[in-house]
Amino acid sequence: MNTRIALTALLVLSLGITTMALAQPSVEDQIKARQSAYTFMSWNMGQIKAQVVDKEVEFNADQVRGWANAIAATANSGMSAMYSPASVEGTGWKPTRLKPEFFDELDKVGEIAGNFVREANALAEVAEGGDPDAIAEQFKATGESCGACHKSYRAE
Amino acid sequence: MNTRIALTALLVLSLGITTMALAQPSVEDQIKARQSAYTFMSWNMGQIKAQVVDKEVEFNADQVRGWANAIAATANSGMSAMYSPASVEGTGWKPTRLKPEFFDELDKVGEIAGNFVREANALAEVAEGGDPDAIAEQFKATGESCGACHKSYRAE
Repeated sequence: MNTRIALTALLVLSLGITTMALAQPSVEDQIKARQSAYTFMSWNMGQIKAQVVDKEVEFNADQVRGWANAIAATANSGMSAMYSPASVEGTGWKPTRLKPEFFDELDKVGEIAGNFVREANALAEVAEGGDPDAIAEQFKATGESCGACHKSYRAE
Repeated sequence: MNTRIALTALLVLSLGITTMALAQPSVEDQIKARQSAYTFMSWNMGQIKAQVVDKEVEFNADQVRGWANAIAATANSGMSAMYSPASVEGTGWKPTRLKPEFFDELDKVGEIAGNFVREANALAEVAEGGDPDAIAEQFKATGESCGACHKSYRAE
């Protein structure tokens, strides 16, 4: 075995070990997990909206607190593990709508994600206070921080 | 208009208003929301398992804390709003596997759900402590509390 083949074999082996050590979930599982996380957050946003923005449901401070906490905890759960470069294509519950630019602009993505986490945390804090008008205002800011990512990195 | 017709009209009107006031999400949205919430929790359980049970990924206390908090916040988010009796049949991301017995045994369901919330809260507390073996133990108890519902109310 010449040196080049030996090195290649070593590389293949070490890559194999690295992959095992990271226990990288499949692309399908990553996409399904993030589609689930966003659908769950969207559900909670919808529940809050019905009470404090549309006011079609009577305000219940405990419920709103629970929904806002769920959004904040999801935002803070380390969702980047749901995004590997390979996951720019593939199907979870449905085909991913992630745009390839996402992985070319990770600084901008990090800024947008950081802003979203801050707004979601602020929503949970305001919900703790129990003032429906203040919650409605922070709901809007949180929704805008979601929209910033959709606008740049989610296909129509 | 005789009294019976007048009363019926009033009943129809008031039911219409009640339905609007509750802003009941569609059965499809309820099923999709709960499938998303459970898939998201399962993702987080899998991430914790890889670090503290299977130990195929190096333990990271901050990450585990984030995943455990997400599970607890989801468990505490008021998921009963995702279950209306009509949602025993229907398709969210996929056809629901909820068994009809769920709505006939609400006392037992409440007990199982309460136990799950307690175990999920305990997991978040233990994760806060950062001891991987203690987390592994509470991970098992939490998984069993999930399984109790699957066993009784989720079709194969």
